[in-house]
Amino acid sequence: MKFEVSDVKSFKTIIDGLSVLVDECGFEFGTEKVEVNALDKSHTTFMSVELDKYYFDEYDCPAPFLAIVDTQQLNKIMKRCKNDDRLICETDSMNMILTFKGDSDRTFSLRLIDNEYESPKPPMIDYPVTISIPSGLFNDTLGDLKILSDVIKIRVDEDYIRFDGEGQFGDAEIKYIHGENIQDYIESSFSIEKLTEIMKVKDFSETLTLSLGNDIPIHIKSELVTRDARLTFMLAPRIIND
Amino acid sequence: MKFEVSDVKSFKTIIDGLSVLVDECGFEFGTEKVEVNALDKSHTTFMSVELDKYYFDEYDCPAPFLAIVDTQQLNKIMKRCKNDDRLICETDSMNMILTFKGDSDRTFSLRLIDNEYESPKPPMIDYPVTISIPSGLFNDTLGDLKILSDVIKIRVDEDYIRFDGEGQFGDAEIKYIHGENIQDYIESSFSIEKLTEIMKVKDFSETLTLSLGNDIPIHIKSELVTRDARLTFMLAPRIIND
Amino acid sequence: MKFEVSDVKSFKTIIDGLSVLVDECGFEFGTEKVEVNALDKSHTTFMSVELDKYYFDEYDCPAPFLAIVDTQQLNKIMKRCKNDDRLICETDSMNMILTFKGDSDRTFSLRLIDNEYESPKPPMIDYPVTISIPSGLFNDTLGDLKILSDVIKIRVDEDYIRFDGEGQFGDAEIKYIHGENIQDYIESSFSIEKLTEIMKVKDFSETLTLSLGNDIPIHIKSELVTRDARLTFMLAPRIIND
Repeated sequence: MKFEVSDVKSFKTIIDGLSVLVDECGFEFGTEKVEVNALDKSHTTFMSVELDKYYFDEYDCPAPFLAIVDTQQLNKIMKRCKNDDRLICETDSMNMILTFKGDSDRTFSLRLIDNEYESPKPPMIDYPVTISIPSGLFNDTLGDLKILSDVIKIRVDEDYIRFDGEGQFGDAEIKYIHGENIQDYIESSFSIEKLTEIMKVKDFSETLTLSLGNDIPIHIKSELVTRDARLTFMLAPRIIND
Repeated sequence: MKFEVSDVKSFKTIIDGLSVLVDECGFEFGTEKVEVNALDKSHTTFMSVELDKYYFDEYDCPAPFLAIVDTQQLNKIMKRCKNDDRLICETDSMNMILTFKGDSDRTFSLRLIDNEYESPKPPMIDYPVTISIPSGLFNDTLGDLKILSDVIKIRVDEDYIRFDGEGQFGDAEIKYIHGENIQDYIESSFSIEKLTEIMKVKDFSETLTLSLGNDIPIHIKSELVTRDARLTFMLAPRIIND
Repeated sequence: MKFEVSDVKSFKTIIDGLSVLVDECGFEFGTEKVEVNALDKSHTTFMSVELDKYYFDEYDCPAPFLAIVDTQQLNKIMKRCKNDDRLICETDSMNMILTFKGDSDRTFSLRLIDNEYESPKPPMIDYPVTISIPSGLFNDTLGDLKILSDVIKIRVDEDYIRFDGEGQFGDAEIKYIHGENIQDYIESSFSIEKLTEIMKVKDFSETLTLSLGNDIPIHIKSELVTRDARLTFMLAPRIIND
């Protein structure tokens, strides 16, 4: 397996996002795309990475190959890659070998982990509503609510998506006109801390697609404008018994 | 009571300054202006805020109203306000309600504190000398002296204002031509740490007005160029027995 | 003794470098130049500073003078000097007196230390190979290898200088075409932490001159393009018994 990426920034964001959620993960290199599925220790956040071969400047994987790596170590290595370096990644039976081509050639060999591996699968859910919002706005919303609360309540009606937080010292509400054709009224609550972890990838794409229902997991999709790379997250709701 | 501010930066600076000195404070909304008086726990620093109604884009307070709030919480909320947001503040009987209008509408309700409240009053002092200096220069002076000393000695003569610090490893002096018509010789010492707390508001105005005497509190005034908002501080001297 | 410097940035870098290695050091002011020799506590890193009188805007030292100072304190003071201040330094029998001339005059007197002092002398070594590389590249190399290893192995052959690090999770190699006429093959290992301390002075000059042999100290020279100021370092090798 060998690939080359010049959009190093998006690749670094992906690895950063994975490293927050899981200690190790399996890169499933296929002939047409790369997939990573990861479920965090608390079993509340599921993250899925899909990179079509067109995402890469070059991609060559004649036969499927699974590479399990330590995400912290991979993230430390990727943080050393400058955004204008070219990244070349190869695997041999023992290592993921990352070369950064810039002023000099820098090669990092990261040991593969020889573990049993079963790719986690997310639940299949039909969502009644789907809304696009700017990534920055959603990230700011979490920052806003976090100062007062641990939990964000998301409500959708015909016109607005509303984000609420409530705490000992007060409460806060951010509302945003969604511009979608929505008939339903939807309400679900989530951990702000867990959503903030997910928003490590806020720079991956300028727009997030949120899918929501009543007291079911939130589904968050972030896709490159070229549509050849996408991240999806599912986070279990916080069911609040009044 | 309802007000609107577009100069969000200066308002944020005020709240930041208050939050360093006191845990809670009372906003005295009058028909013509807002006042806050605060005395820090150690009873050495007094801070006074005066905001004329012309400071606000809109100000509507038909009857005097006292709103006591937790300054840490208010500061956390105000830090979420972007400098190009518009700030609208209202009160009801239970809450101070702050709305930030930008890309989205974000509303924070901060619980009012239902306490006995008596507004602290500063001592009335006649000062023999008053000198204007750039806020940045005074702030830098504190940073300079802090590396050697805990105490700043301020001396004023006909030509100069001098700031001295003395410590185990050496001493430092910053001198500045004050340009005022001063006959007296004045000398007082103050805690550098306490003055550094006050200088949290260094960005409120480019110029500070210092009033000084011999071994009496220093009086520091910071006023917007529009003259419709001012902060004053008084800090008790450190009397040093040689 | 009195000198004046307008290239404050390089002087600050020197003091910063000294403060990392030693607690106190002796400035040997001669009639034609200033020298500082310092050996760190672990006796593995030797640092030498040479400032010709032409480095200074003014330099006046009629008779040799030794000034021993606390490097931490001197560094704290120098950090207060802005890059566009002019620095004037004088000594009296008790103090090193540093004046920063900018918007105001700021004078720091640092007590001299009244100790026995013997200037450490570095070993004289003939080096088989000498290579120039960009300071930034060497600094980045240390940052790269540090994430995997404590030790850097430096190897030089006819074409390349190679920097290797090896650790539990993987290994890394940075290689760089040196462009020198070298026949030998050279290999030595060093502590990454110690080299990182030395690279505090990475901004002193854009180019470093590395002199190397087999299992002998590395010699690192950093010289201003004007050639009137130079820093040299020698760091003992890490002998690795396989």
